[in-house]
Amino acid sequence: MKANTISLEHGAGGEVMQALIGEIILKNFRNKSAGSIGLESLDDGSTIRLENFNPVSELVLTTDSHVITPAFFPDTNIGRLAVSGTINDLTVMGAKPLALTCAVIVPEGFPILDFEEIIKTMDETATEVGVPIITGDTKTVEKTALDSIILNTAGLGITDSPIRDSGLKPGDKLLVTGTIGDHGISLMAHREGFDFDTDLASDSAPLWKLIEPVLKLRTPEGTPLITAMKDPTRGGLANALNEMAAKAGAGILLEEDLIPFKPAVTAACEMLGLDPLEVANEGKAIIGVKAGFEEKVLSLLRQHPYGKDAALIGEVTLENKGEVILRNRFGGMRYVDIPAGDPIPRVC
Amino acid sequence: MKANTISLEHGAGGEVMQALIGEIILKNFRNKSAGSIGLESLDDGSTIRLENFNPVSELVLTTDSHVITPAFFPDTNIGRLAVSGTINDLTVMGAKPLALTCAVIVPEGFPILDFEEIIKTMDETATEVGVPIITGDTKTVEKTALDSIILNTAGLGITDSPIRDSGLKPGDKLLVTGTIGDHGISLMAHREGFDFDTDLASDSAPLWKLIEPVLKLRTPEGTPLITAMKDPTRGGLANALNEMAAKAGAGILLEEDLIPFKPAVTAACEMLGLDPLEVANEGKAIIGVKAGFEEKVLSLLRQHPYGKDAALIGEVTLENKGEVILRNRFGGMRYVDIPAGDPIPRVC
Ligand SMILES: Nc1ncnc2c1ncn2[C@@H]1O[C@H](COP(=O)(O)OP(=O)(O)OP(=O)(O)O)[C@@H](O)[C@H]1O
Ligand SMILES: Nc1ncnc2c1ncn2[C@@H]1O[C@H](COP(=O)(O)OP(=O)(O)OP(=O)(O)O)[C@@H](O)[C@H]1O
Ligand SMILES: [Mg+2]
Ligand SMILES: [Mg+2]
Ligand SMILES: [Mg+2]
Ligand SMILES: [Mg+2]
Ligand SMILES: [Mg+2]
Ligand SMILES: [Mg+2]
Repeated sequence: MKANTISLEHGAGGEVMQALIGEIILKNFRNKSAGSIGLESLDDGSTIRLENFNPVSELVLTTDSHVITPAFFPDTNIGRLAVSGTINDLTVMGAKPLALTCAVIVPEGFPILDFEEIIKTMDETATEVGVPIITGDTKTVEKTALDSIILNTAGLGITDSPIRDSGLKPGDKLLVTGTIGDHGISLMAHREGFDFDTDLASDSAPLWKLIEPVLKLRTPEGTPLITAMKDPTRGGLANALNEMAAKAGAGILLEEDLIPFKPAVTAACEMLGLDPLEVANEGKAIIGVKAGFEEKVLSLLRQHPYGKDAALIGEVTLENKGEVILRNRFGGMRYVDIPAGDPIPRVC
Repeated sequence: MKANTISLEHGAGGEVMQALIGEIILKNFRNKSAGSIGLESLDDGSTIRLENFNPVSELVLTTDSHVITPAFFPDTNIGRLAVSGTINDLTVMGAKPLALTCAVIVPEGFPILDFEEIIKTMDETATEVGVPIITGDTKTVEKTALDSIILNTAGLGITDSPIRDSGLKPGDKLLVTGTIGDHGISLMAHREGFDFDTDLASDSAPLWKLIEPVLKLRTPEGTPLITAMKDPTRGGLANALNEMAAKAGAGILLEEDLIPFKPAVTAACEMLGLDPLEVANEGKAIIGVKAGFEEKVLSLLRQHPYGKDAALIGEVTLENKGEVILRNRFGGMRYVDIPAGDPIPRVC
C-alpha cells in the first residue's frame, strides 16, 4: 500500500479498492471461509455449508452499505438501492433471498418524513421479491458528523448450485440484462442540475424474479446454462468484466455496437466526459451462458420488465487471457481497462 | 411521532428510539418474519426456519452498526466492539455464531495504519470464538462528510432452542455476567480526559465461549435453565431490564448491593453525574435462570475470565408487572425507569 491515508478511490470499486482489500483485509483475516465460496474468492457473497440439508444446498451471505448523496434521486431513493443491491448480490450467486437486515445511520436533523419514505421504499422493494426484512439497527450521529443517511443491508439466501463470478469458459456468450450506465449517469446529471427532459433515471431494481427462471434452465445433459454471473455496480461493466476475465483466466471480446445504451445516457456521457462502461449500474446483471443457449436465455429475460433490453454483448475467448477487448463497428479494437475506481463518487 | 426531525435520542437505545422503530419501521415493513422470532419481537436478532434440519434448528440473523468516537479507546478499538456486538446478539439468542460480515465506511484521510489495526482487532476478536468473517463491503466518503470510521457487522448463527428476551417468569433469578457500566463510563472518562489511574476500560468482549456451556445445562426434567437473555448495551441495565419486564409482563426486583460495579466506575459516575445503570455495556449479558439453579450457573460462568465477576442481582416478581424496582441496603425502593436514551452519545 503506497498511500498513508484512505482516499476516495479506496472505496470506489476499482483497482485501488481491490489492492486495499487484498493487502489489508485478506491478509489479516485468518478465518474467512464457512463453505465452498469464502472471502478469498472475492465474489458477490460467500457461502455457508450446513449439514443435513436435503437437497444439498448452501446458504449465501452478503452485505453492502450505501452512502449515496443525495439520498433522493431520479426516480427513487437510497432505500430501493440498498434493498436491491443486497438482493442482487444474492441473485448473482444463484441464491434465493431468504431474509434481509436493515441498519440505518441517521444524522441529527434528518427529516422524519424522509426517513419514513425511505423505509417505505425499502418495504416496497423487498415486497417485490417477497423477502422479509427481519432485523435491523438504528444509530444516530451529530449533525456535523455525517452529511446524509447511510444504510447497510445484509442478506441471507439459499442455493443448491451457487454461481461464481469466476466460472466463464472460452466460447461462452456474454449477456447483459439491460441498458448500461443508467444509474451513475443519471445521478451525475441530477447532481449537476442537467435536465435532459428524458427518462434518465436510476435503474435500481431487485433482480431475483428476473433471474430465478433462468437459473432453472438446464442443458439436455442437465447442467445449468449459466456459467458465471455478476452485477456490474461500482466501476461498471469495465470493472466487473475485468474481474470475471481475470478470475476465469480467459479473454472477453465485446462488440461495442451490441452494448445497449439509452440515448440520454450516451448524450449525457458526452456532455460530462464520462465513460458509461465505468459507471455503476444498480439493476443489471452480466450473465455468462453456454454457447448455443444464449437466445433461449435472452428470450426468457425479455419477458420480464427488468430484462426487456437484455442483449448479447460479446463472448469469452481463449486468447487475451485476463483482458477485456472492445471491438467497434469498423473492426477497431481497444482494451477496456480496469478503472482505478468508479469516476462518480458516492454513487451507491 | 411528535418531532419533525431526527434527534440523537432516536438512535440512543431508549424510549425515544423504541417509539421510532415502533411507529415507523414496524408499521411500514409488511413482511418481517422468516421463522419463530420475527422483527415484531424486537429481540436481539430474528430467526429463519429452514426445512430438513436435523435436529430441528433455526438460523438467527442479527446486525449492528458502530459509530463510536473516538475509534480507539481504552483498551481497544471499534473493531473489537463491532465483532463482539454481533457475536453477543447471537449469543443471547442462544445461537452458535456461524459467520460474520464486515462492512466499513471510511472518511478520506483516515490513516491506513489505523485501518489495518482495526481490521486486525476484528480478526482477533472473531478468532476468540472461532467464527469466520466471510464477506464485506468497503465504502469511502469525503473528509467533510463523516468524522470517523463506521463499521457494520451482521451475523448468522444456529440454535436448536432459541432464547428470547421475553421469557422471564415470576420466581426466576436474574444474573449478570460481570461488572456494570464499564464501557460507557470508561469512554466518557476517556473523552473528558480524566485519568483515574485505574483499570477503567471498555468491557467489550465476545461472550459466546462464556455462554455456550450454560446453554447446555438442563433441569432434571430436561428443560433449559436459561429462561431469557439479553445484552445490556445502549441504555444499559435500566433499558434492557425494562424491556425484559415489559415483554414478560412481570416485575423485576433488583438488590442494589448485589449489582457489581468497579470502584473506578462508581467514582467516575459521581464525578460525571451519570447513572451506571443507564450506560452501555459491551461484554455483558443478563441471564434469567430458573430458581434453584442460579448457583450452578454462576459457578460455571465464574470459570471463564469474562464471567469472573458474575453475580445474582435480583429476581422476577408477580407484582409490579412491567416495572423494574431497585431496593437499597436499607430496604428503600425506587423505580428504575426506562431511559429516554443512553446518556452518553456515540457510545457504540
Ligand atoms: N471490508 C471488507 N471486509 C471483508 N471483505 C470485504 C470488505 N470489502 C469488500 N470485501 C469483499 O471484497 C469483494 C468485493 O466487494 P464489493 O463491495 O466490490 O462487491 P459487491 O458488493 O459485489 O460490489 P458493490 O459494493 O459495488 O455492490 C467481496 O467479496 C466482498 O466480500
Ligand atoms: N432500522 C431498523 N430496521 C429494522 N429493525 C430495527 C431497526 N433498528 C432497530 N431494529 C430492531 O429493533 C430492536 C432493537 O434494536 P437494538 O439495536 O436496540 O437491539 P440490539 O442490537 O440488541 O442493541 P444495540 O444496538 O444497542 O447493540 C431489534 O429487534 C432490531 O432488530
Ligand atoms: Mg456484486
Ligand atoms: Mg453489491
Ligand atoms: Mg442494534
Ligand atoms: Mg442486543
Ligand atoms: Mg446489539
Ligand atoms: Mg459491496
